[in-house]
Amino acid sequence: MRRVRYSVAMSLDGYIAGPKGEFDWIPMDPDIDFGALLKEFDTLLMGRKSYEAAQKQRGGGGAMPGMQAYVFSRTLRQADCRDATVSADAKATVTALKQKPGKDIWLFGGGELFKSLLDLGLVDAVQLGIVPVLLGGGLPMLPSAARSAKLELTSHKVYEKTGTVLLTYAVR
Amino acid sequence: MRRVRYSVAMSLDGYIAGPKGEFDWIPMDPDIDFGALLKEFDTLLMGRKSYEAAQKQRGGGGAMPGMQAYVFSRTLRQADCRDATVSADAKATVTALKQKPGKDIWLFGGGELFKSLLDLGLVDAVQLGIVPVLLGGGLPMLPSAARSAKLELTSHKVYEKTGTVLLTYAVR
Repeated sequence: MRRVRYSVAMSLDGYIAGPKGEFDWIPMDPDIDFGALLKEFDTLLMGRKSYEAAQKQRGGGGAMPGMQAYVFSRTLRQADCRDATVSADAKATVTALKQKPGKDIWLFGGGELFKSLLDLGLVDAVQLGIVPVLLGGGLPMLPSAARSAKLELTSHKVYEKTGTVLLTYAVR
Repeated sequence: MRRVRYSVAMSLDGYIAGPKGEFDWIPMDPDIDFGALLKEFDTLLMGRKSYEAAQKQRGGGGAMPGMQAYVFSRTLRQADCRDATVSADAKATVTALKQKPGKDIWLFGGGELFKSLLDLGLVDAVQLGIVPVLLGGGLPMLPSAARSAKLELTSHKVYEKTGTVLLTYAVR
Protein backbone atom coordinates (compact mmCIF):
# COMPACT_ATOMS: atom_id res chain seq x y z
CA MET A 1 0.00 0.00 0.00
CA ARG A 2 1.24 3.49 -0.78
CA ARG A 3 2.50 5.41 2.20
CA VAL A 4 1.55 8.79 3.62
CA ARG A 5 4.89 10.44 4.27
CA TYR A 6 5.32 13.66 6.26
CA SER A 7 8.35 15.15 4.53
CA VAL A 8 9.43 18.59 5.72
CA ALA A 9 12.42 20.74 6.64
CA MET A 10 12.70 21.34 10.38
CA SER A 11 14.84 23.52 12.61
CA LEU A 12 16.75 21.66 15.31
CA ASP A 13 14.26 22.97 17.87
CA GLY A 14 11.28 21.48 16.06
CA TYR A 15 9.80 24.21 13.85
CA ILE A 16 8.79 23.87 10.20
CA ALA A 17 8.37 27.62 9.68
CA GLY A 18 9.37 30.77 11.56
CA PRO A 19 7.03 32.84 13.76
CA LYS A 20 5.75 34.72 10.68
CA GLY A 21 5.74 31.65 8.44
CA GLU A 22 9.30 32.32 7.23
CA PHE A 23 11.18 29.73 5.18
CA ASP A 24 14.31 31.85 4.66
CA TRP A 25 16.25 29.74 7.19
CA ILE A 26 16.05 26.66 4.94
CA PRO A 27 19.20 26.37 2.82
CA MET A 28 19.04 24.89 -0.66
CA ASP A 29 21.69 22.23 -0.34
CA PRO A 30 23.10 21.59 -3.83
CA ASP A 31 23.52 17.89 -3.05
CA ILE A 32 19.87 17.26 -2.20
CA ASP A 33 18.19 15.89 -5.32
CA PHE A 34 14.79 17.55 -5.04
CA GLY A 35 13.78 16.32 -8.48
CA ALA A 36 14.29 12.70 -7.45
CA LEU A 37 12.42 13.35 -4.20
CA LEU A 38 9.45 14.87 -6.03
CA LYS A 39 9.26 11.85 -8.33
CA GLU A 40 8.55 9.61 -5.34
CA PHE A 41 5.18 11.32 -4.90
CA ASP A 42 2.11 11.85 -7.05
CA THR A 43 -0.27 13.24 -4.44
CA LEU A 44 -0.03 16.17 -2.07
CA LEU A 45 -1.90 16.74 1.19
CA MET A 46 -2.03 20.23 2.64
CA GLY A 47 -3.77 21.97 5.47
CA ARG A 48 -5.62 25.18 4.64
CA LYS A 49 -2.93 27.48 6.02
CA SER A 50 -0.15 25.69 4.13
CA TYR A 51 -2.21 25.87 0.94
CA GLU A 52 -2.89 29.57 1.35
CA ALA A 53 0.77 30.26 2.14
CA ALA A 54 1.84 28.38 -1.00
CA GLN A 55 -0.80 30.22 -3.04
CA LYS A 56 0.53 33.55 -1.83
CA GLN A 57 4.13 32.61 -2.50
CA ARG A 58 3.50 31.41 -6.03
CA GLY A 59 0.98 34.12 -6.87
CA GLY A 60 -1.74 31.74 -7.90
CA GLY A 61 -2.29 28.04 -7.45
CA GLY A 62 -1.16 26.52 -4.19
CA ALA A 63 -0.35 23.06 -5.47
CA MET A 64 2.43 21.63 -7.63
CA PRO A 65 2.42 20.68 -11.28
CA GLY A 66 1.99 16.96 -11.85
CA MET A 67 0.63 16.30 -8.39
CA GLN A 68 -2.91 15.58 -7.35
CA ALA A 69 -3.42 18.04 -4.51
CA TYR A 70 -5.88 17.84 -1.63
CA VAL A 71 -6.59 20.67 0.80
CA PHE A 72 -8.28 19.94 4.10
CA SER A 73 -10.51 22.67 5.43
CA ARG A 74 -13.96 23.20 6.85
CA THR A 75 -14.17 26.75 5.48
CA LEU A 76 -12.60 26.74 1.99
CA ARG A 77 -14.98 26.27 -0.92
CA GLN A 78 -14.06 24.24 -3.98
CA ALA A 79 -14.55 27.39 -6.10
CA ASP A 80 -11.60 28.99 -4.26
CA CYS A 81 -9.22 26.24 -5.38
CA ARG A 82 -8.67 25.73 -9.04
CA ASP A 83 -5.79 23.33 -8.64
CA ALA A 84 -6.73 21.26 -5.60
CA THR A 85 -9.57 19.13 -4.31
CA VAL A 86 -11.09 20.51 -1.13
CA SER A 87 -12.10 18.04 1.56
CA ALA A 88 -13.58 18.57 4.99
CA ASP A 89 -13.16 14.90 5.91
CA ALA A 90 -9.48 14.02 6.17
CA LYS A 91 -10.14 10.53 7.49
CA ALA A 92 -12.37 9.44 4.63
CA THR A 93 -10.34 11.15 1.91
CA VAL A 94 -6.92 9.91 3.04
CA THR A 95 -8.17 6.39 3.76
CA ALA A 96 -9.61 6.21 0.24
CA LEU A 97 -6.43 7.63 -1.32
CA LYS A 98 -4.25 5.05 0.43
CA GLN A 99 -6.33 2.25 -1.03
CA LYS A 100 -5.86 3.46 -4.59
CA PRO A 101 -2.72 2.43 -6.47
CA GLY A 102 -0.06 5.10 -6.88
CA LYS A 103 3.18 6.56 -5.60
CA ASP A 104 3.70 7.82 -2.07
CA ILE A 105 1.47 10.57 -0.73
CA TRP A 106 3.28 13.70 0.41
CA LEU A 107 1.97 15.13 3.63
CA PHE A 108 3.34 18.58 2.87
CA GLY A 109 2.12 20.26 6.03
CA GLY A 110 1.43 21.87 8.22
CA GLY A 111 1.81 20.51 11.70
CA GLU A 112 -1.92 20.65 12.41
CA LEU A 113 -2.72 18.33 9.52
CA PHE A 114 0.14 16.03 10.57
CA LYS A 115 -1.30 15.95 14.08
CA SER A 116 -4.80 15.07 12.82
CA LEU A 117 -3.57 12.31 10.52
CA LEU A 118 -1.14 10.94 13.12
CA ASP A 119 -3.91 10.76 15.70
CA LEU A 120 -6.02 8.91 13.11
CA GLY A 121 -3.18 6.42 12.54
CA LEU A 122 -2.91 7.44 8.88
CA VAL A 123 0.75 8.50 8.71
CA ASP A 124 3.25 5.84 7.63
CA ALA A 125 6.54 7.70 7.57
CA VAL A 126 8.18 10.87 8.83
CA GLN A 127 11.07 12.37 6.87
CA LEU A 128 12.83 15.41 8.26
CA GLY A 129 15.55 17.56 6.79
CA ILE A 130 17.02 18.89 10.03
CA VAL A 131 18.47 22.33 9.38
CA PRO A 132 21.27 23.49 11.70
CA VAL A 133 19.45 26.44 13.20
CA LEU A 134 17.55 27.22 16.39
CA LEU A 135 14.57 29.41 15.55
CA GLY A 136 13.36 29.87 19.12
CA GLY A 137 9.74 30.01 17.93
CA GLY A 138 7.49 29.36 14.96
CA LEU A 139 5.14 26.72 13.63
CA PRO A 140 5.86 23.41 15.38
CA MET A 141 6.34 20.23 13.33
CA LEU A 142 3.81 18.60 15.67
CA PRO A 143 1.49 20.77 17.77
CA SER A 144 0.33 19.29 21.06
CA ALA A 145 -0.94 15.84 20.04
CA ALA A 146 -3.46 13.47 21.56
CA ARG A 147 -1.01 10.61 21.70
CA SER A 148 2.67 9.85 21.28
CA ALA A 149 4.07 7.69 18.49
CA LYS A 150 6.99 5.30 18.35
CA LEU A 151 9.18 5.55 15.30
CA GLU A 152 11.77 3.40 13.63
CA LEU A 153 14.77 5.05 11.99
CA THR A 154 14.85 3.67 8.45
CA SER A 155 17.51 5.86 6.85
CA HIS A 156 19.78 8.81 7.41
CA LYS A 157 21.99 11.00 5.30
CA VAL A 158 24.13 14.01 6.06
CA TYR A 159 24.55 16.82 3.53
CA GLU A 160 27.91 18.27 4.42
CA LYS A 161 27.64 21.56 2.53
CA THR A 162 24.80 22.92 4.65
CA GLY A 163 24.93 20.52 7.61
CA THR A 164 21.41 19.35 6.85
CA VAL A 165 20.65 15.91 8.31
CA LEU A 166 17.94 13.93 6.54
CA LEU A 167 16.28 11.41 8.85
CA THR A 168 13.54 9.04 7.74
CA TYR A 169 11.37 7.07 10.14
CA ALA A 170 8.58 4.54 9.86
CA VAL A 171 5.65 5.14 12.21
CA ARG A 172 5.17 1.99 14.27
CA MET B 1 38.66 28.01 26.44
CA ARG B 2 36.44 25.29 27.81
CA ARG B 3 33.05 25.02 26.19
CA VAL B 4 29.54 25.14 27.58
CA ARG B 5 27.81 22.22 25.90
CA TYR B 6 24.06 21.60 26.01
CA SER B 7 23.96 17.81 25.88
CA VAL B 8 20.53 16.19 26.18
CA ALA B 9 18.27 13.49 24.80
CA MET B 10 15.45 14.87 22.67
CA SER B 11 12.33 13.46 21.06
CA LEU B 12 12.06 14.04 17.32
CA ASP B 13 9.44 16.72 17.99
CA GLY B 14 11.76 18.72 20.22
CA TYR B 15 11.06 17.71 23.83
CA ILE B 16 13.62 16.83 26.49
CA ALA B 17 11.03 15.43 28.92
CA GLY B 18 7.41 14.35 28.73
CA PRO B 19 4.42 16.43 29.90
CA LYS B 20 4.92 15.18 33.48
CA GLY B 21 8.71 15.27 33.32
CA GLU B 22 8.93 11.65 32.12
CA PHE B 23 12.22 10.19 30.89
CA ASP B 24 10.88 6.69 30.27
CA TRP B 25 10.90 7.25 26.49
CA ILE B 26 14.71 7.49 26.44
CA PRO B 27 16.24 4.11 25.58
CA MET B 28 19.59 3.12 27.05
CA ASP B 29 21.44 2.25 23.87
CA PRO B 30 24.12 -0.30 24.75
CA ASP B 31 26.51 1.21 22.21
CA ILE B 32 26.49 4.71 23.70
CA ASP B 33 29.53 5.02 25.95
CA PHE B 34 28.08 7.15 28.74
CA GLY B 35 31.22 6.71 30.84
CA ALA B 36 33.37 8.26 28.12
CA LEU B 37 30.84 11.05 27.66
CA LEU B 38 30.82 11.87 31.38
CA LYS B 39 34.62 12.07 31.39
CA GLU B 40 34.49 14.97 28.95
CA PHE B 41 32.91 17.12 31.65
CA ASP B 42 33.87 18.23 35.14
CA THR B 43 31.16 20.82 35.75
CA LEU B 44 27.39 20.66 35.62
CA LEU B 45 24.91 23.50 35.13
CA MET B 46 21.28 22.95 36.06
CA GLY B 47 18.17 25.02 36.34
CA ARG B 48 16.22 24.78 39.57
CA LYS B 49 13.54 22.48 38.19
CA SER B 50 16.09 20.08 36.69
CA TYR B 51 17.99 20.03 39.97
CA GLU B 52 14.86 19.32 41.98
CA ALA B 53 13.80 16.59 39.56
CA ALA B 54 17.22 14.95 39.84
CA GLN B 55 17.11 15.27 43.64
CA LYS B 56 13.76 13.53 43.72
CA GLN B 57 14.87 10.77 41.37
CA ARG B 58 18.04 9.99 43.30
CA GLY B 59 16.49 10.48 46.72
CA GLY B 60 19.03 13.01 47.87
CA GLY B 61 21.61 15.15 46.13
CA GLY B 62 20.72 16.45 42.70
CA ALA B 63 24.22 16.53 41.28
CA MET B 64 26.66 13.86 40.10
CA PRO B 65 29.71 12.44 41.82
CA GLY B 66 32.96 13.95 40.60
CA MET B 67 31.27 16.98 39.06
CA GLN B 68 31.19 20.52 40.32
CA ALA B 69 27.51 21.36 40.14
CA TYR B 70 25.86 24.76 39.87
CA VAL B 71 22.14 25.40 40.25
CA PHE B 72 20.64 28.63 38.97
CA SER B 73 17.72 29.96 40.94
CA ARG B 74 16.45 33.12 42.52
CA THR B 75 14.54 31.22 45.22
CA LEU B 76 16.73 28.29 46.32
CA ARG B 77 18.96 28.88 49.34
CA GLN B 78 22.45 27.45 49.59
CA ALA B 79 21.35 25.56 52.73
CA ASP B 80 18.91 23.54 50.56
CA CYS B 81 21.74 22.22 48.35
CA ARG B 82 24.47 20.20 49.97
CA ASP B 83 26.05 19.09 46.73
CA ALA B 84 25.73 22.12 44.47
CA THR B 85 26.59 25.80 44.43
CA VAL B 86 23.51 27.99 44.16
CA SER B 87 23.76 31.08 41.97
CA ALA B 88 21.19 33.73 41.11
CA ASP B 89 23.46 35.29 38.48
CA ALA B 90 23.95 32.90 35.58
CA LYS B 91 25.82 35.44 33.48
CA ALA B 92 28.52 36.18 36.07
CA THR B 93 28.87 32.60 37.26
CA VAL B 94 29.10 30.98 33.82
CA THR B 95 31.39 33.68 32.45
CA ALA B 96 33.76 33.14 35.37
CA LEU B 97 33.61 29.33 35.00
CA LYS B 98 34.50 29.53 31.31
CA GLN B 99 37.62 31.52 32.12
CA LYS B 100 38.90 28.92 34.56
CA PRO B 101 40.87 25.96 33.20
CA GLY B 102 39.02 22.65 33.08
CA LYS B 103 37.06 20.20 30.99
CA ASP B 104 33.85 21.04 29.17
CA ILE B 105 30.88 22.35 31.13
CA TRP B 106 27.73 20.27 30.84
CA LEU B 107 24.59 22.32 30.43
CA PHE B 108 22.39 19.53 31.71
CA GLY B 109 19.11 21.39 31.43
CA GLY B 110 16.49 22.36 31.33
CA GLY B 111 15.33 24.31 28.34
CA GLU B 112 14.80 27.52 30.34
CA LEU B 113 18.45 27.62 31.42
CA PHE B 114 19.54 26.81 27.85
CA LYS B 115 17.41 29.70 26.61
CA SER B 116 18.91 32.14 29.14
CA LEU B 117 22.49 31.14 28.40
CA LEU B 118 21.89 31.06 24.62
CA ASP B 119 20.44 34.56 24.74
CA LEU B 120 23.53 35.65 26.72
CA GLY B 121 25.80 34.12 24.04
CA LEU B 122 27.31 31.72 26.57
CA VAL B 123 26.55 28.38 24.88
CA ASP B 124 29.27 26.95 22.64
CA ALA B 125 27.85 23.63 21.53
CA VAL B 126 24.58 21.74 21.29
CA GLN B 127 24.62 17.94 21.38
CA LEU B 128 21.37 16.07 20.94
CA GLY B 129 20.61 12.39 21.17
CA ILE B 130 17.53 12.32 18.95
CA VAL B 131 15.26 9.51 20.12
CA PRO B 132 12.87 8.03 17.53
CA VAL B 133 9.65 9.02 19.24
CA LEU B 134 7.04 11.77 18.89
CA LEU B 135 5.90 12.81 22.37
CA GLY B 136 3.30 15.33 21.23
CA GLY B 137 3.98 17.50 24.28
CA GLY B 138 6.37 18.03 27.17
CA LEU B 139 9.29 20.24 28.14
CA PRO B 140 10.74 21.85 25.00
CA MET B 141 14.48 21.72 24.37
CA LEU B 142 14.31 25.47 23.75
CA PRO B 143 11.33 27.45 25.01
CA SER B 144 10.42 30.55 23.04
CA ALA B 145 13.74 32.39 22.76
CA ALA B 146 14.64 36.03 22.27
CA ARG B 147 16.76 35.33 19.23
CA SER B 148 17.58 32.56 16.80
CA ALA B 149 20.99 30.94 16.53
CA LYS B 150 22.93 29.56 13.59
CA LEU B 151 24.63 26.25 14.17
CA GLU B 152 27.33 24.25 12.45
CA LEU B 153 27.08 20.47 12.36
CA THR B 154 30.37 19.20 13.77
CA SER B 155 29.66 15.49 14.14
CA HIS B 156 26.98 12.85 13.81
CA LYS B 157 26.60 9.23 14.77
CA VAL B 158 23.77 6.76 14.44
CA TYR B 159 23.17 4.08 17.08
CA GLU B 160 21.47 1.33 15.14
CA LYS B 161 20.10 -0.68 18.07
CA THR B 162 17.73 2.04 19.25
CA GLY B 163 17.74 4.35 16.22
CA THR B 164 19.15 7.16 18.33
CA VAL B 165 20.90 9.82 16.23
CA LEU B 166 23.58 11.83 18.03
CA LEU B 167 24.10 15.24 16.43
CA THR B 168 26.65 17.76 17.66
CA TYR B 169 26.69 21.40 16.61
CA ALA B 170 28.85 24.42 17.31
CA VAL B 171 26.93 27.62 18.04
CA ARG B 172 28.08 30.27 15.56
